[in-house]
Amino acid sequence: MYQIIELSTTRRTELIDITDQVRNIIQKSKIRNGSVIIYVPHTTAAITINENYDQSVADDITNVLNRLFPHNYRYQHSEGNADAHIKAALIGSTRTIFIEDNEILFGTWQGIFFCEFDGPRKRKVFVKIIPDSSC
Amino acid sequence: MYQIIELSTTRRTELIDITDQVRNIIQKSKIRNGSVIIYVPHTTAAITINENYDQSVADDITNVLNRLFPHNYRYQHSEGNADAHIKAALIGSTRTIFIEDNEILFGTWQGIFFCEFDGPRKRKVFVKIIPDSSC
Amino acid sequence: MYQIIELSTTRRTELIDITDQVRNIIQKSKIRNGSVIIYVPHTTAAITINENYDQSVADDITNVLNRLFPHNYRYQHSEGNADAHIKAALIGSTRTIFIEDNEILFGTWQGIFFCEFDGPRKRKVFVKIIPDSSC
Repeated sequence: MYQIIELSTTRRTELIDITDQVRNIIQKSKIRNGSVIIYVPHTTAAITINENYDQSVADDITNVLNRLFPHNYRYQHSEGNADAHIKAALIGSTRTIFIEDNEILFGTWQGIFFCEFDGPRKRKVFVKIIPDSSC
Repeated sequence: MYQIIELSTTRRTELIDITDQVRNIIQKSKIRNGSVIIYVPHTTAAITINENYDQSVADDITNVLNRLFPHNYRYQHSEGNADAHIKAALIGSTRTIFIEDNEILFGTWQGIFFCEFDGPRKRKVFVKIIPDSSC
Repeated sequence: MYQIIELSTTRRTELIDITDQVRNIIQKSKIRNGSVIIYVPHTTAAITINENYDQSVADDITNVLNRLFPHNYRYQHSEGNADAHIKAALIGSTRTIFIEDNEILFGTWQGIFFCEFDGPRKRKVFVKIIPDSSC
Protein backbone atom coordinates (compact mmCIF):
# COMPACT_ATOMS: atom_id res chain seq x y z
CA MET A 1 0.00 0.00 0.00
CA TYR A 2 1.20 3.45 -0.85
CA GLN A 3 -0.34 6.86 -1.32
CA ILE A 4 0.18 9.25 -4.23
CA ILE A 5 0.72 13.00 -4.12
CA GLU A 6 0.07 14.67 -7.47
CA LEU A 7 1.80 17.92 -8.39
CA SER A 8 1.86 20.35 -11.27
CA THR A 9 5.15 22.17 -11.35
CA THR A 10 5.33 25.59 -12.98
CA ARG A 11 9.02 26.27 -13.62
CA ARG A 12 11.96 24.33 -15.04
CA THR A 13 13.71 24.22 -11.66
CA GLU A 14 11.92 24.69 -8.36
CA LEU A 15 11.55 23.24 -4.89
CA ILE A 16 7.93 22.65 -3.85
CA ASP A 17 7.02 22.18 -0.20
CA ILE A 18 4.98 18.96 0.15
CA THR A 19 5.08 18.76 3.95
CA ASP A 20 1.33 19.33 4.35
CA GLN A 21 0.44 16.63 1.83
CA VAL A 22 2.68 14.10 3.59
CA ARG A 23 1.25 15.15 6.96
CA ASN A 24 -2.31 14.60 5.65
CA ILE A 25 -1.45 11.08 4.52
CA ILE A 26 -0.02 10.29 7.95
CA GLN A 27 -3.04 11.69 9.76
CA LYS A 28 -5.48 9.73 7.60
CA SER A 29 -3.47 6.54 8.24
CA LYS A 30 -4.08 6.86 12.01
CA ILE A 31 -0.66 5.23 12.50
CA ARG A 32 0.90 6.62 15.67
CA ASN A 33 4.53 5.51 15.40
CA GLY A 34 6.59 4.35 12.46
CA SER A 35 8.55 5.44 9.43
CA VAL A 36 7.47 7.18 6.27
CA ILE A 37 9.29 6.67 2.98
CA ILE A 38 8.94 9.38 0.36
CA TYR A 39 9.87 8.27 -3.14
CA VAL A 40 9.85 10.07 -6.48
CA PRO A 41 9.22 7.84 -9.54
CA HIS A 42 10.97 10.27 -11.89
CA THR A 43 14.55 10.55 -13.14
CA THR A 44 14.70 14.36 -13.33
CA ALA A 45 13.24 15.13 -9.91
CA ALA A 46 14.25 14.44 -6.30
CA ILE A 47 13.29 14.71 -2.63
CA THR A 48 15.06 16.73 0.03
CA ILE A 49 14.37 17.62 3.66
CA ASN A 50 15.43 21.19 4.30
CA GLU A 51 14.37 24.53 5.74
CA ASN A 52 10.90 25.60 4.61
CA TYR A 53 10.62 28.70 6.78
CA ASP A 54 12.59 31.09 4.58
CA GLN A 55 12.02 30.66 0.81
CA SER A 56 15.54 31.94 0.13
CA VAL A 57 17.00 28.59 1.24
CA ALA A 58 15.17 26.75 -1.57
CA ASP A 59 16.20 29.49 -4.01
CA ASP A 60 19.86 29.21 -3.01
CA ILE A 61 19.78 25.43 -3.51
CA THR A 62 18.34 25.71 -7.01
CA ASN A 63 20.62 28.62 -7.94
CA VAL A 64 23.77 26.82 -6.84
CA LEU A 65 22.75 23.61 -8.63
CA ASN A 66 22.00 25.58 -11.81
CA ARG A 67 25.41 27.24 -11.60
CA LEU A 68 27.30 23.94 -11.06
CA PHE A 69 25.28 22.02 -13.66
CA PRO A 70 24.22 24.47 -16.36
CA HIS A 71 21.28 23.58 -18.60
CA ASN A 72 23.33 24.20 -21.74
CA TYR A 73 26.64 22.38 -21.73
CA ARG A 74 28.42 19.75 -23.79
CA TYR A 75 26.37 16.85 -22.40
CA GLN A 76 26.04 13.63 -24.41
CA HIS A 77 22.35 13.05 -23.63
CA SER A 78 20.51 14.66 -26.51
CA GLU A 79 17.17 15.46 -24.90
CA GLY A 80 18.34 18.71 -23.35
CA ASN A 81 17.79 17.63 -19.75
CA ALA A 82 21.10 16.00 -18.80
CA ASP A 83 21.57 18.62 -16.06
CA ALA A 84 18.28 17.52 -14.51
CA HIS A 85 19.33 13.85 -14.41
CA ILE A 86 22.61 14.83 -12.72
CA LYS A 87 20.90 17.00 -10.09
CA ALA A 88 18.40 14.20 -9.40
CA ALA A 89 21.25 11.71 -8.89
CA LEU A 90 22.98 14.04 -6.42
CA ILE A 91 19.95 14.99 -4.33
CA GLY A 92 18.44 11.50 -4.48
CA SER A 93 14.98 10.14 -5.10
CA THR A 94 14.08 8.70 -1.68
CA ARG A 95 14.07 9.82 1.94
CA THR A 96 12.92 7.96 5.07
CA ILE A 97 11.83 9.89 8.15
CA PHE A 98 9.98 9.06 11.36
CA ILE A 99 6.41 9.32 12.65
CA GLU A 100 5.82 9.88 16.36
CA ASP A 101 2.34 10.39 17.85
CA ASN A 102 0.84 10.49 14.33
CA GLU A 103 3.06 13.46 13.39
CA ILE A 104 6.25 13.78 11.34
CA LEU A 105 9.21 13.81 13.72
CA PHE A 106 10.83 17.07 12.66
CA GLY A 107 13.36 19.53 13.95
CA THR A 108 12.36 23.18 14.23
CA TRP A 109 12.95 24.21 10.62
CA GLN A 110 12.42 21.08 8.58
CA GLY A 111 10.08 20.59 5.67
CA ILE A 112 9.84 18.10 2.80
CA PHE A 113 10.53 19.41 -0.70
CA PHE A 114 9.81 17.94 -4.09
CA CYS A 115 12.71 19.06 -6.30
CA GLU A 116 11.69 19.74 -9.89
CA PHE A 117 14.68 19.89 -12.25
CA ASP A 118 12.98 19.54 -15.66
CA GLY A 119 9.59 21.20 -15.40
CA PRO A 120 7.02 22.37 -15.83
CA ARG A 121 5.37 18.94 -15.70
CA LYS A 122 2.76 16.87 -13.94
CA ARG A 123 4.58 14.84 -11.28
CA LYS A 124 3.88 12.19 -8.67
CA VAL A 125 5.34 11.43 -5.26
CA PHE A 126 4.77 8.02 -3.66
CA VAL A 127 4.46 7.77 0.12
CA LYS A 128 4.53 4.56 2.18
CA ILE A 129 4.13 4.26 5.93
CA ILE A 130 5.83 1.44 7.85
CA PRO A 131 4.24 1.16 11.31
CA ASP A 132 6.52 0.25 14.19
CA SER A 133 6.28 -3.47 14.72
CA SER A 134 4.02 -4.56 17.56
CA CYS A 135 4.41 -8.30 16.99
CA MET B 1 17.68 -11.77 5.86
CA TYR B 2 19.23 -10.08 2.90
CA GLN B 3 20.33 -11.05 -0.58
CA ILE B 4 23.66 -10.33 -2.24
CA ILE B 5 24.29 -9.19 -5.81
CA GLU B 6 27.90 -9.74 -6.88
CA LEU B 7 29.48 -7.56 -9.56
CA SER B 8 32.80 -7.29 -11.36
CA THR B 9 33.31 -3.75 -12.55
CA THR B 10 35.58 -3.11 -15.51
CA ARG B 11 36.44 0.58 -15.39
CA ARG B 12 37.54 3.09 -12.74
CA THR B 13 34.25 4.99 -12.99
CA GLU B 14 31.07 3.50 -14.38
CA LEU B 15 27.36 3.10 -13.70
CA ILE B 16 26.13 -0.49 -13.94
CA ASP B 17 22.43 -1.25 -14.35
CA ILE B 18 21.41 -3.76 -11.65
CA THR B 19 17.65 -3.46 -12.16
CA ASP B 20 17.25 -7.03 -13.41
CA GLN B 21 19.18 -8.51 -10.47
CA VAL B 22 17.01 -6.60 -7.99
CA ARG B 23 13.86 -7.65 -9.88
CA ASN B 24 14.94 -11.31 -9.72
CA ILE B 25 15.39 -11.10 -5.95
CA ILE B 26 11.91 -9.61 -5.60
CA GLN B 27 10.32 -12.26 -7.82
CA LYS B 28 11.97 -15.13 -5.92
CA SER B 29 10.79 -13.63 -2.62
CA LYS B 30 7.13 -13.93 -3.74
CA ILE B 31 6.44 -10.79 -1.68
CA ARG B 32 3.65 -8.85 -3.36
CA ASN B 33 3.80 -5.47 -1.60
CA GLY B 34 6.50 -3.81 0.43
CA SER B 35 9.74 -1.89 0.28
CA VAL B 36 13.14 -2.85 -1.00
CA ILE B 37 16.32 -1.35 0.43
CA ILE B 38 19.42 -1.41 -1.75
CA TYR B 39 22.67 -0.89 0.16
CA VAL B 40 26.29 -0.81 -0.95
CA PRO B 41 28.83 -1.98 1.68
CA HIS B 42 31.64 0.01 0.07
CA THR B 43 33.04 3.50 0.65
CA THR B 44 33.98 4.26 -2.96
CA ALA B 45 30.72 3.16 -4.61
CA ALA B 46 27.09 4.25 -4.45
CA ILE B 47 23.52 3.56 -5.59
CA THR B 48 21.36 5.80 -7.74
CA ILE B 49 17.97 5.47 -9.40
CA ASN B 50 18.07 7.15 -12.78
CA GLU B 51 17.28 6.75 -16.47
CA ASN B 52 18.50 3.43 -17.87
CA TYR B 53 16.97 3.78 -21.34
CA ASP B 54 19.66 5.98 -22.90
CA GLN B 55 23.25 5.12 -21.87
CA SER B 56 24.27 8.77 -22.39
CA VAL B 57 22.55 9.71 -19.09
CA ALA B 58 24.89 7.46 -17.11
CA ASP B 59 27.85 8.76 -19.12
CA ASP B 60 26.93 12.39 -18.39
CA ILE B 61 26.66 11.66 -14.67
CA THR B 62 30.12 10.08 -14.51
CA ASN B 63 31.66 12.75 -16.77
CA VAL B 64 30.31 15.61 -14.69
CA LEU B 65 31.41 13.98 -11.42
CA ASN B 66 34.89 13.39 -12.85
CA ARG B 67 35.10 17.03 -13.91
CA LEU B 68 33.97 18.36 -10.50
CA PHE B 69 36.09 15.91 -8.49
CA PRO B 70 39.20 15.11 -10.52
CA HIS B 71 41.15 11.93 -9.75
CA ASN B 72 44.38 13.88 -9.40
CA TYR B 73 44.09 16.85 -7.09
CA ARG B 74 45.64 18.06 -3.83
CA TYR B 75 43.66 15.65 -1.64
CA GLN B 76 44.98 14.66 1.79
CA HIS B 77 44.01 10.98 1.58
CA SER B 78 47.11 9.26 0.24
CA GLU B 79 45.59 6.18 -1.39
CA GLY B 80 44.74 7.97 -4.64
CA ASN B 81 40.98 7.47 -4.38
CA ALA B 82 39.84 10.52 -2.40
CA ASP B 83 37.69 11.58 -5.37
CA ALA B 84 35.86 8.24 -5.18
CA HIS B 85 35.06 8.68 -1.47
CA ILE B 86 33.68 12.17 -2.17
CA LYS B 87 31.50 11.00 -5.07
CA ALA B 88 30.19 8.13 -2.92
CA ALA B 89 29.28 10.55 -0.11
CA LEU B 90 27.36 12.79 -2.53
CA ILE B 91 25.41 10.08 -4.39
CA GLY B 92 24.83 8.00 -1.25
CA SER B 93 25.08 4.33 -0.41
CA THR B 94 21.42 3.42 0.17
CA ARG B 95 18.09 3.80 -1.61
CA THR B 96 14.64 2.56 -0.58
CA ILE B 97 11.97 1.99 -3.21
CA PHE B 98 8.61 0.23 -3.33
CA ILE B 99 7.30 -3.16 -4.44
CA GLU B 100 3.76 -3.43 -5.80
CA ASP B 101 2.29 -6.68 -7.16
CA ASN B 102 5.73 -8.35 -6.84
CA GLU B 103 7.29 -5.73 -9.15
CA ILE B 104 9.45 -2.67 -8.54
CA LEU B 105 7.20 0.40 -8.51
CA PHE B 106 8.94 2.46 -11.17
CA GLY B 107 8.22 5.43 -13.35
CA THR B 108 8.64 5.04 -17.11
CA TRP B 109 12.39 5.58 -17.33
CA GLN B 110 13.76 4.45 -14.01
CA GLY B 111 16.45 1.87 -13.38
CA ILE B 112 18.77 1.05 -10.48
CA PHE B 113 22.47 1.73 -10.97
CA PHE B 114 25.49 0.59 -9.02
CA CYS B 115 27.96 3.49 -9.20
CA GLU B 116 31.59 2.39 -9.34
CA PHE B 117 34.00 5.21 -8.52
CA ASP B 118 37.23 3.28 -7.82
CA GLY B 119 37.23 0.21 -10.07
CA PRO B 120 37.80 -2.14 -11.56
CA ARG B 121 36.95 -4.33 -8.56
CA LYS B 122 34.75 -7.12 -7.32
CA ARG B 123 31.79 -5.51 -5.56
CA LYS B 124 28.69 -6.46 -3.61
CA VAL B 125 25.23 -4.96 -3.28
CA PHE B 126 22.97 -5.97 -0.38
CA VAL B 127 19.21 -6.10 -0.91
CA LYS B 128 16.57 -6.43 1.81
CA ILE B 129 12.81 -6.64 1.34
CA ILE B 130 10.43 -5.31 3.98
CA PRO B 131 6.94 -6.71 3.33
CA ASP B 132 4.00 -4.43 4.03
CA SER B 133 2.72 -5.25 7.49
CA SER B 134 -0.34 -7.47 7.63
CA CYS B 135 -0.54 -7.70 11.39
CA MET C 1 10.06 4.12 19.15
CA TYR C 2 13.37 5.70 18.34
CA GLN C 3 16.61 6.42 20.14
CA ILE C 4 18.46 9.72 20.32
CA ILE C 5 22.20 10.32 20.01
CA GLU C 6 23.25 13.72 21.38
CA LEU C 7 26.34 15.47 20.05
CA SER C 8 28.24 18.67 20.70
CA THR C 9 30.13 19.69 17.59
CA THR C 10 33.23 21.86 17.92
CA ARG C 11 33.86 23.32 14.48
CA ARG C 12 31.78 24.96 11.76
CA THR C 13 32.31 22.02 9.40
CA GLU C 14 33.30 18.56 10.54
CA LEU C 15 32.46 14.89 10.16
CA ILE C 16 31.95 13.06 13.47
CA ASP C 17 32.10 9.27 13.64
CA ILE C 18 28.93 8.02 15.37
CA THR C 19 29.38 4.33 14.54
CA ASP C 20 29.91 3.29 18.18
CA GLN C 21 26.79 5.11 19.37
CA VAL C 22 24.67 3.43 16.68
CA ARG C 23 26.24 0.06 17.50
CA ASN C 24 25.38 0.54 21.20
CA ILE C 25 21.74 1.23 20.36
CA ILE C 26 21.59 -1.93 18.27
CA GLN C 27 23.19 -4.07 20.98
CA LYS C 28 20.83 -2.79 23.66
CA SER C 29 17.84 -3.50 21.38
CA LYS C 30 18.80 -7.24 21.24
CA ILE C 31 17.36 -7.28 17.72
CA ARG C 32 19.32 -9.80 15.68
CA ASN C 33 18.27 -9.00 12.11
CA GLY C 34 16.68 -5.96 10.58
CA SER C 35 17.30 -2.47 9.29
CA VAL C 36 18.44 0.66 11.07
CA ILE C 37 17.42 4.11 9.88
CA ILE C 38 19.65 7.03 10.87
CA TYR C 39 17.96 10.43 10.56
CA VAL C 40 19.16 13.95 11.34
CA PRO C 41 16.42 16.41 12.40
CA HIS C 42 18.47 19.42 11.27
CA THR C 43 18.62 21.39 8.01
CA THR C 44 22.34 22.22 8.13
CA ALA C 45 23.66 18.75 8.96
CA ALA C 46 23.62 15.35 7.25
CA ILE C 47 24.49 11.65 7.51
CA THR C 48 26.99 9.75 5.39
CA ILE C 49 28.46 6.27 5.43
CA ASN C 50 32.11 6.45 4.49
CA GLU C 51 35.62 5.38 5.43
CA ASN C 52 36.38 5.95 9.12
CA TYR C 53 39.80 4.30 9.17
CA ASP C 54 41.83 7.21 7.80
CA GLN C 55 40.75 10.66 9.05
CA SER C 56 41.99 12.24 5.81
CA VAL C 57 38.92 10.91 3.97
CA ALA C 58 36.58 12.96 6.18
CA ASP C 59 38.88 15.97 5.80
CA ASP C 60 38.87 15.69 2.01
CA ILE C 61 35.07 15.53 1.96
CA THR C 62 34.69 18.69 4.05
CA ASN C 63 37.47 20.51 2.16
CA VAL C 64 35.97 19.77 -1.23
CA LEU C 65 32.47 20.78 -0.09
CA ASN C 66 33.85 24.03 1.35
CA ARG C 67 35.62 24.77 -1.92
CA LEU C 68 32.51 24.08 -4.06
CA PHE C 69 30.11 25.89 -1.71
CA PRO C 70 32.03 28.69 -0.01
CA HIS C 71 30.71 30.13 3.24
CA ASN C 72 30.81 33.67 1.86
CA TYR C 73 29.13 34.01 -1.50
CA ARG C 74 26.23 35.91 -3.03
CA TYR C 75 23.55 33.71 -1.46
CA GLN C 76 20.02 35.06 -0.92
CA HIS C 77 19.49 33.48 2.50
CA SER C 78 20.54 36.17 4.94
CA GLU C 79 21.49 34.07 7.95
CA GLY C 80 24.99 33.33 6.72
CA ASN C 81 24.55 29.56 6.51
CA ALA C 82 23.19 29.04 2.99
CA ASP C 83 26.25 26.93 2.17
CA ALA C 84 25.35 24.59 5.04
CA HIS C 85 21.78 24.09 3.77
CA ILE C 86 23.12 23.26 0.29
CA LYS C 87 25.67 20.75 1.61
CA ALA C 88 22.96 19.12 3.75
CA ALA C 89 20.68 18.78 0.71
CA LEU C 90 23.43 17.13 -1.32
CA ILE C 91 24.65 14.65 1.30
CA GLY C 92 21.15 13.95 2.62
CA SER C 93 19.61 13.63 6.06
CA THR C 94 18.76 9.91 6.19
CA ARG C 95 20.49 6.59 5.59
CA THR C 96 19.15 3.04 5.99
CA ILE C 97 21.55 0.16 6.59
CA PHE C 98 21.23 -3.45 7.75
CA ILE C 99 21.60 -5.36 11.01
CA GLU C 100 22.79 -8.96 10.92
CA ASP C 101 23.43 -11.01 14.07
CA ASN C 102 22.91 -7.89 16.22
CA GLU C 103 25.72 -6.05 14.39
CA ILE C 104 25.77 -3.39 11.68
CA LEU C 105 26.30 -5.11 8.33
CA PHE C 106 29.36 -3.22 7.13
CA GLY C 107 32.07 -3.58 4.56
CA THR C 108 35.69 -3.43 5.72
CA TRP C 109 36.10 0.33 5.88
CA GLN C 110 32.65 1.69 6.59
CA GLY C 111 31.61 3.95 9.43
CA ILE C 112 28.66 6.28 10.04
CA PHE C 113 29.37 10.00 10.13
CA PHE C 114 27.32 12.91 11.39
CA CYS C 115 28.13 15.80 9.04
CA GLU C 116 28.16 19.19 10.77
CA PHE C 117 27.97 22.08 8.29
CA ASP C 118 27.00 24.98 10.58
CA GLY C 119 28.60 24.33 13.97
CA PRO C 120 29.60 24.43 16.64
CA ARG C 121 26.19 23.42 18.02
CA LYS C 122 24.38 20.86 20.10
CA ARG C 123 22.89 18.31 17.69
CA LYS C 124 20.71 15.21 17.72
CA VAL C 125 20.60 12.08 15.61
CA PHE C 126 17.48 9.87 15.64
CA VAL C 127 17.88 6.12 15.22
CA LYS C 128 15.09 3.62 14.57
CA ILE C 129 15.41 -0.14 14.22
CA ILE C 130 13.01 -2.11 12.02
CA PRO C 131 13.28 -5.81 12.89
CA ASP C 132 12.97 -8.30 10.05
CA SER C 133 9.38 -9.49 9.94
CA SER C 134 8.72 -12.85 11.51
CA CYS C 135 4.98 -12.90 10.92
